[in-house]
Amino acid sequence: MPIAINETHDPARRSFVERANAPDTDFPIQNLPFGVFRPSPGERPRVGVAIGDQVLDVAAAAAAWAGLAGEAARACAAPRLNDLMGLGGEAASALRLALSRALSTEHGDQTLRHHLTPMAQASLDLPVAIGDFTDFFASIFHATNAGKIFRPDNPLMPNYKYVPVAYHSRSSSVLPSGTAFKRPRGQRKAADEAAPSYGPSRALDFELELGLYIGAPSRLGEPVPISRAAEHIFGFCLLNDWSARDIQAWESQPLGPFLGKDFATSVSPWVVTAEALAPFHRAAFAAAAPRRRRRPRRGRPRHYA
Amino acid sequence: MPIAINETHDPARRSFVERANAPDTDFPIQNLPFGVFRPSPGERPRVGVAIGDQVLDVAAAAAAWAGLAGEAARACAAPRLNDLMGLGGEAASALRLALSRALSTEHGDQTLRHHLTPMAQASLDLPVAIGDFTDFFASIFHATNAGKIFRPDNPLMPNYKYVPVAYHSRSSSVLPSGTAFKRPRGQRKAADEAAPSYGPSRALDFELELGLYIGAPSRLGEPVPISRAAEHIFGFCLLNDWSARDIQAWESQPLGPFLGKDFATSVSPWVVTAEALAPFHRAAFAAAAPRRRRRPRRGRPRHYA
Repeated sequence: MPIAINETHDPARRSFVERANAPDTDFPIQNLPFGVFRPSPGERPRVGVAIGDQVLDVAAAAAAWAGLAGEAARACAAPRLNDLMGLGGEAASALRLALSRALSTEHGDQTLRHHLTPMAQASLDLPVAIGDFTDFFASIFHATNAGKIFRPDNPLMPNYKYVPVAYHSRSSSVLPSGTAFKRPRGQRKAADEAAPSYGPSRALDFELELGLYIGAPSRLGEPVPISRAAEHIFGFCLLNDWSARDIQAWESQPLGPFLGKDFATSVSPWVVTAEALAPFHRAAFAAAAPRRRRRPRRGRPRHYA
Repeated sequence: MPIAINETHDPARRSFVERANAPDTDFPIQNLPFGVFRPSPGERPRVGVAIGDQVLDVAAAAAAWAGLAGEAARACAAPRLNDLMGLGGEAASALRLALSRALSTEHGDQTLRHHLTPMAQASLDLPVAIGDFTDFFASIFHATNAGKIFRPDNPLMPNYKYVPVAYHSRSSSVLPSGTAFKRPRGQRKAADEAAPSYGPSRALDFELELGLYIGAPSRLGEPVPISRAAEHIFGFCLLNDWSARDIQAWESQPLGPFLGKDFATSVSPWVVTAEALAPFHRAAFAAAAPRRRRRPRRGRPRHYA
């Protein structure tokens, strides 16, 4: 089910936070991503929304609001987004609508200025307490390229075109972007070495990936049909899947990547909601469903995005 | 560092909970494993200790105790063991000592009877909120047997004798033993089939494993030396690593097990502390440290357990 387009997506809406109207901002009033911040170092973390060059303290600004938007705003007093995410898409959507209005020039509530912190001054934390972390081997191009590193003659496995290939990684080493971490040490064995040696990775690599945060939970043993999968996606981020290729190559047979991957994973501090991205929604590449539709149906457009 | 043996390990100590003194009980006063229980279905979960055929509500019985034992007992009001585990080994040890005395016939505090629930009447929950779950491919015999299923000619990979081979699994599908779950559905492809089919696993298997709960945390990027590893282990359980071998065989190249393993993992509701097992501590098989000690040192016994 596509997410409805509403006034929050209107490209003409402008904010009384001036920098939100700059053509080069990442945070126009149409975006309103959620994150976790501290207004100054000693303060407790709480949920904020990015608007221009500012962060709005959502619970402080909106806890008194009525209805579902107020309920969602009160969940933003927590130190992670999980409480808000757990309320489901309808609550987050109501909050987005109310925030968009309150931050707009037309309907704006200037008292919200009291709850803004300059982003340059705020410290940004990990946005979500991550329960489980699954890395999907998405993109046949990436799978082929990565496969060539380890199996030059046979990069793509026979299962790739049939089943989502994925592995679980370590959720406790997911860090907000910008957090420093150490180059991992581990066992590496080059093809021309008789035995492995222990030391710092000599082949540290990175992978820019799209991260998805699952909000509304599923129940163990009850499948989620593809047609309803979108209802479980709270939002998106960019993710750096740091990879120590030498450690990974030596350790990962037969059980897959482990220490070569789980020493650090960086995520953006801001979670862009699925709703904010709704205007950019496109049908998936038709080839993603092989062997189903032998002949394209007449009269229906096909999208390649 | 071996854990000290103290009066809690004394085989002669007996409890005023009569069934704890039966020769066939799993829960003598020397054991005192921690778990999470509800005295009756509607009540909130809290930490309990198994003694004979009873469960002691630790926080209710011991919250007023002084010192470190009292602090640890108050952490037992939580619905999972994590708060207690986070206090570190010294606190859990102080609580164990105080519980052992209070439940003993010699020093016993009979008022504790008010806080006992028959185990047959209690419902036992998942004991720990599990942050990350790592499955180690321990035991060369198991690795060889499991490897034969997938690679009859080449069961053991060259890395096996050098590096701990392991993978992360799904922590949200860890269930207390006895919880029913569905046979997983997924893609399976037999060697003589041209393409995979979707359906219930035709090769559901199980693996009895030893589970370790990490209590005291480590810090990202700071290695824990083997000599200090034991300080991080809160306790042990038995674990059933349910495995859908047909789904696993098809999906797990190149990234390892995923849906073939993560549909359910059963753990015992009771966590036996490392301290309770201290009298049974034996040196590891000497072959576990290859290439280090070429010649055994004279005059020191070697243990094979």
